[in-house]
Amino acid sequence: MLGYAELLAFDRMAADARLAPDLRRRAVLSEMAGLEITSYRRITARLIDRGVDPPEAMAPFRPALDAYHAQTEPNDWLEALTKAYVGDSIADDFVREVARFLGPTDRRLVLDVLHDSDYAQYAAGEIRGALADDPSRANRLSMWARRLVGEAIMQAQRVAAERATFAEILLDGLGGGGLVGVGALLKRLTTAHTNRMSAVGLNNEGRNNN
Amino acid sequence: MLGYAELLAFDRMAADARLAPDLRRRAVLSEMAGLEITSYRRITARLIDRGVDPPEAMAPFRPALDAYHAQTEPNDWLEALTKAYVGDSIADDFVREVARFLGPTDRRLVLDVLHDSDYAQYAAGEIRGALADDPSRANRLSMWARRLVGEAIMQAQRVAAERATFAEILLDGLGGGGLVGVGALLKRLTTAHTNRMSAVGLNNEGRNNN
Repeated sequence: MLGYAELLAFDRMAADARLAPDLRRRAVLSEMAGLEITSYRRITARLIDRGVDPPEAMAPFRPALDAYHAQTEPNDWLEALTKAYVGDSIADDFVREVARFLGPTDRRLVLDVLHDSDYAQYAAGEIRGALADDPSRANRLSMWARRLVGEAIMQAQRVAAERATFAEILLDGLGGGGLVGVGALLKRLTTAHTNRMSAVGLNNEGRNNN
Repeated sequence: MLGYAELLAFDRMAADARLAPDLRRRAVLSEMAGLEITSYRRITARLIDRGVDPPEAMAPFRPALDAYHAQTEPNDWLEALTKAYVGDSIADDFVREVARFLGPTDRRLVLDVLHDSDYAQYAAGEIRGALADDPSRANRLSMWARRLVGEAIMQAQRVAAERATFAEILLDGLGGGGLVGVGALLKRLTTAHTNRMSAVGLNNEGRNNN
């Protein structure tokens, strides 16, 4: 899942780069996109080491990840950045939770790969600056963020429903009788998301409080 | 011009990657795209060293390069590869000719950057394979190559007309009384192009000789 997500991240960041307001920002984004491919390579190399065919291993996760991106195509530079900041951060948090249940080699690889992406952090700085320039943008972007989270949850449920093994690993790992563990996980993800929204001046209700 | 061309090359290869028939080829292209950004960085660093603002220096070349790519948007994987093989190779040959008139540091940088792109070579192998599978494709791709060359010449003339200094450096460097030198340059570019077409099984008349 993470491997295919990296390939899509490259693709999306390359597309986002086209929305950049100037050449400097466009180059920054294009450059960050390149890092995702390095991550993709590390993951496929590990899959091959384990005797797994990468395209085959990625196939089951493609419909949900493709659908998420197709449903949340950003219309401009700020929507692209918000998508990176909100969506990538939630995805990273989720993957980090799953990584706890992997063996040490895979866990280290997954955490390394997550650490290598600076897009969310870069996006946060840009969003903060854009809202300082024009606070009236906060409402539109907060609504957009809400839509992103909704779509992400929908696709995550789809993966869980279709990939029983994946869901089981997660449920077993989380402990607390399965559902209790999932509830706690969702709470952790939600809290982190809410904190990130406030950190850049967006609100989690989709209304403009300014 | 080369700097902006590298940024566009990244962008176009990322778009071409989406046309790839499988994940393996998609990753290969995405990875090669990443290298273009490294080249872009090297060129902008050199511009900055020379006290030149990169976006400002690139601005005059953007309309022609953007127009070339907008007019030659590939419709499928083989058109994308043919564009890379035909178009990039002519562009590389041209840049290599211009590099002869630069100082040693800039010349070395330009030649290094050209050497770093493997796309045209990769594309040649893929085209050869595709034509071996189905020789009837040669006609369509030969016509497409013809269109690419026509568009490239049109945009090159546009640059020459609008950028008098650029044209003068080239004319002075080529010697032989200006036009004689340009004629010889065009002959070198054309011969190399024709050889490349035959090398992969395409023909330069836009007709299928098979």
